[in-house]
Amino acid sequence: MSRIAVIPGDGIGQEVIAEAQKVLAVALPGYESTEYDLGARLYNRTGEILPDTVMSELDEHDAILLGAIGDPTVPPGVLERGLLLRLRFEFDQYVNLRPSRLYPGASSPLADVKPGDIDFVVVREGTEGLYTGAGGNLHTGSPAEIATEESLNTRYGTERVIRDAFERARRRRGHLTLVHKTNVLVHAGGLWKRTFDDVAAEYQDVTTEYQHVDAAAMFLVNRPHTFDVIVTDNLFGDILTDIAAAVTGGIGLAATGSINPDHTHPSTFEPVHGSAPDIAGQGIADPVAAISSTALLLEHLGRADAAAAVNAAVERELASRDSGTAIRTAEVGDRVAADVAGQLS
Amino acid sequence: MSRIAVIPGDGIGQEVIAEAQKVLAVALPGYESTEYDLGARLYNRTGEILPDTVMSELDEHDAILLGAIGDPTVPPGVLERGLLLRLRFEFDQYVNLRPSRLYPGASSPLADVKPGDIDFVVVREGTEGLYTGAGGNLHTGSPAEIATEESLNTRYGTERVIRDAFERARRRRGHLTLVHKTNVLVHAGGLWKRTFDDVAAEYQDVTTEYQHVDAAAMFLVNRPHTFDVIVTDNLFGDILTDIAAAVTGGIGLAATGSINPDHTHPSTFEPVHGSAPDIAGQGIADPVAAISSTALLLEHLGRADAAAAVNAAVERELASRDSGTAIRTAEVGDRVAADVAGQLS
Ligand SMILES: CC(C)[C@H](C(=O)O)[C@@H](O)C(=O)O
Ligand SMILES: CC(C)[C@H](C(=O)O)[C@@H](O)C(=O)O
Repeated sequence: MSRIAVIPGDGIGQEVIAEAQKVLAVALPGYESTEYDLGARLYNRTGEILPDTVMSELDEHDAILLGAIGDPTVPPGVLERGLLLRLRFEFDQYVNLRPSRLYPGASSPLADVKPGDIDFVVVREGTEGLYTGAGGNLHTGSPAEIATEESLNTRYGTERVIRDAFERARRRRGHLTLVHKTNVLVHAGGLWKRTFDDVAAEYQDVTTEYQHVDAAAMFLVNRPHTFDVIVTDNLFGDILTDIAAAVTGGIGLAATGSINPDHTHPSTFEPVHGSAPDIAGQGIADPVAAISSTALLLEHLGRADAAAAVNAAVERELASRDSGTAIRTAEVGDRVAADVAGQLS
Repeated sequence: MSRIAVIPGDGIGQEVIAEAQKVLAVALPGYESTEYDLGARLYNRTGEILPDTVMSELDEHDAILLGAIGDPTVPPGVLERGLLLRLRFEFDQYVNLRPSRLYPGASSPLADVKPGDIDFVVVREGTEGLYTGAGGNLHTGSPAEIATEESLNTRYGTERVIRDAFERARRRRGHLTLVHKTNVLVHAGGLWKRTFDDVAAEYQDVTTEYQHVDAAAMFLVNRPHTFDVIVTDNLFGDILTDIAAAVTGGIGLAATGSINPDHTHPSTFEPVHGSAPDIAGQGIADPVAAISSTALLLEHLGRADAAAAVNAAVERELASRDSGTAIRTAEVGDRVAADVAGQLS
């Protein structure tokens, strides 16, 4: 029996996760879930972010389903680093996966694109680079202040994520783009490029390409249909995935997985959107991204059929929407869950 | 008399710079120019990139007008670092300026935008951050390899570029957006944010905003009209300016200045596009970006009227184009030069 840790979090996180769980109930019948009350409320009440005991308990699960973390009452960065990044680093979630598709019914800010034109995934490294926290400040607050940030990269870390990206490319359209900035970041760029070329030799069936991050950012806007799989470092991936979300109609629909492909610790699956305190509690948040994140979760647990059913149901849900109709969170969940049930019965 | 060093460079660089000089001849009558043969040809012939003697000679000029550097025969990064970045660092060109406008006649990949909707400038720091080259590799080529890149930031360096951005915002629509990643890059982000807040106190007439780089990248795609002036670090600026170029119709039309606002060394002005060896020598390259870069140059030399005349002429040139008509490099230069002459006579 699959054991899922559920962290609804703040604001609309609670509402959308309830719908995601409706869908999971039919897609992964009989799964066991444990709910964890983490996020801004816990922090404001107790000052705690992610107690070590909770960390150990989470580690007993097969996956984590997360809603949204954050509230204006908490200083920016505190919960992100103390919770999201801690999970990524301590649970060795080295594949940060972000599928980017333009769904029927979704509206892209780009002219001349139609559903199906955009369909790629970004494989972002999740445990190295500029996200380690290395660096410091000297003479803080004085005119003499200096600040450093250090990007740490290993052959071990780059090779495993690049290998994962090649595997995904092989299962898709067979094209992999490495994005870095080798012409300026020669040290890390050199390591990434050499590792990429070494691994590429084992995947002769995958065509490869290299792009500087500035060019890739531009191409995501003016020719997004040319991408299949992108592999890149932690910070570049953070930026590129948000451009990807923008061209596919906004972060409202995007889902992401912070994945430990070796299953040595649980992976986290979540919608990309935030806690949206402005619309929380009204039952009008769109749960589609949270529901899509269960598809990534199912995929990770080896339930490819159930994942495909969820994706198909989400696609039908989006295609059926009139641009004018208001969203009722619970109704969307009911519709998608019924659709999935129909497919799997 | 203004002394301009001209580096036509490679490929279409030569062709577009010839047109830029036609325009400069009428906009800055009697300017003296010295031409420097730098770039891929020099490098392939002699192995030299930027001899120290040339560096000293360049330093005697008021500004540098550059075409494009690069050729497939030269390993990537060599000329960029040896020439472009060397100029930025040694000539202390700490303001990397990139105006981003959607011109009439230019075609944006975005739906629902019309000329005039997009009009902002990015002020990118040019002498610090991840561009210093700090970092290294250990156990290169082995499974134990590690690579580091270090971002170096000073109060001195951030304050001067932020101050410049506030000045520009004051001369424009009075809105300045700081872009960084303070929730993850806490050391450098802290320095940037504190410096920004300190300087903001002196510019009560400028409204300010802070955005994380991933959000800013997304907003440049789905609401570019909300930006007036953006100030950001060297690497974020590199990425954001290319997104800006994309939404305004591609790097073919963009111009940039690597500016030393204190005039202690010359500043460099250039089109953003590359040497485009595939179309070089045919007289069909669009010289508009090179011509626009002379407007930035004129502005920097205190010739605001002449700069405005060049910008107006460029705008008329672009508006007059039929999408079908082929571009003849020399004719574009003739037309724009004649227009500028008419305005200034
Ligand atoms: C919240 C933040 C720390 C995080 C990141 O920068 O990785 C977010 O932007 C993301 O993409 O998951
Ligand atoms: C050529 C390269 C070194 C340069 C940079 O990264 O700054 C370019 O992309 C730019 O934006 O001027």
